[in-house]
Amino acid sequence: MQKTELLYEGKAKKVYATENPDYCIVSYKDDATAFNGLKKGTIVGKGVVNNRMSNFMFQLLEKHGIKTHFVEELSDRDTVVRKVSIVPLEVIVRNKAAGSLSKRLGLEEGTPMRVPVLEFCYKNDDLGDPMVNNYHILAAGFATQEEIDKISSMALKVNELMLEFFKSIGVDLIDFKIEFGKTSDGEIILADEISPDTCRFWDINTHEKLDKDRFRRDMGGVEEAYAEMMKRIGLN
Amino acid sequence: MQKTELLYEGKAKKVYATENPDYCIVSYKDDATAFNGLKKGTIVGKGVVNNRMSNFMFQLLEKHGIKTHFVEELSDRDTVVRKVSIVPLEVIVRNKAAGSLSKRLGLEEGTPMRVPVLEFCYKNDDLGDPMVNNYHILAAGFATQEEIDKISSMALKVNELMLEFFKSIGVDLIDFKIEFGKTSDGEIILADEISPDTCRFWDINTHEKLDKDRFRRDMGGVEEAYAEMMKRIGLN
Repeated sequence: MQKTELLYEGKAKKVYATENPDYCIVSYKDDATAFNGLKKGTIVGKGVVNNRMSNFMFQLLEKHGIKTHFVEELSDRDTVVRKVSIVPLEVIVRNKAAGSLSKRLGLEEGTPMRVPVLEFCYKNDDLGDPMVNNYHILAAGFATQEEIDKISSMALKVNELMLEFFKSIGVDLIDFKIEFGKTSDGEIILADEISPDTCRFWDINTHEKLDKDRFRRDMGGVEEAYAEMMKRIGLN
Repeated sequence: MQKTELLYEGKAKKVYATENPDYCIVSYKDDATAFNGLKKGTIVGKGVVNNRMSNFMFQLLEKHGIKTHFVEELSDRDTVVRKVSIVPLEVIVRNKAAGSLSKRLGLEEGTPMRVPVLEFCYKNDDLGDPMVNNYHILAAGFATQEEIDKISSMALKVNELMLEFFKSIGVDLIDFKIEFGKTSDGEIILADEISPDTCRFWDINTHEKLDKDRFRRDMGGVEEAYAEMMKRIGLN
């Protein structure tokens, strides 16, 4: 499969059309941004990590009945995925407080949640990806109630599967962000990526951060953290 | 019934104990604040308006099956209410975009919502009353699912009744904030107040604002707007 036209260039990925209208090629970059693009930088090798880890995770989830956009890994940075229209919602699942949830509720980072917390944010850079609730989503027409229900149950199932997997490699899954897409026949499938850019991973014993918070917070050891995650998953 | 101990002094009200442990006396002040206390002022006569309008609305809602904390109006500023423990949520219902919803979704003020939008904010001045969703409420223990369901259905019913009433007096109910309390036997009832402090009222034809936005936005004519609402309700 060959790249044809560049369809979209985002902060961390490019998406190309292919000769097949049902498929795209995603190409992962090393560019890193944070705080809605206010902080910019490069994490050397990130594109490779995020591509390969995402594809590994998508295949693991597929085995457990979660439909994803993954089709075929072409190279370290390029992957064929099903073409979808992205539902304009960031879907966040949180097992412990961190980041914006810590601020929102005044909770220390690492505070366990009694139940997994699901959040939706409207994907809109100009508005700063604001948190929205079920009523906002329906009133604004971002998704139907049926789609919200499907996305919610898939997100919570993804959380269960990921919690178990990451625990088995000594990683505490604090929270993560996923996105869903709609295929041409209206099916909701998991899209976007699953990587240290989009998840908070803490070492289960030392609580050392193994994710993009090292970049956001200028903690150093960013590349090493991404490499450590690859090593634990068995991908290097 | 006599005031005994001052139990609580808020931005716009004082609450006193009485000799009867099941009842309190609420005393409405003319003090006005906005933006989480950053803006302070006085709206002359506001306490009288808010007390009498709230009591009128509570009695109207009671007639239509909504249980409220209202017991008896003692004077222009003082009212006996049932003692409740306040559920720590601001419950907001929106029929048209205004204020924070306009900012959140990038909508012009006055944009109609396809469905009434319900929002919950965690009542916490230090955190700036952050918006929370169902999962946050359960995870933080602010209310049970049963209480959320009860509060949601009551809030939407209150909206229906208020929309109809205010329309009949030429007022467009843009949005409002209510609070709920739990009685000693665990029943959820409507509490707090219903007034130009807590509702957005627009003249149905001219769209003139008849509420606290005139104070928040330094528009002038604040006392006149509160008086106009009283006149339309037939309370002066």
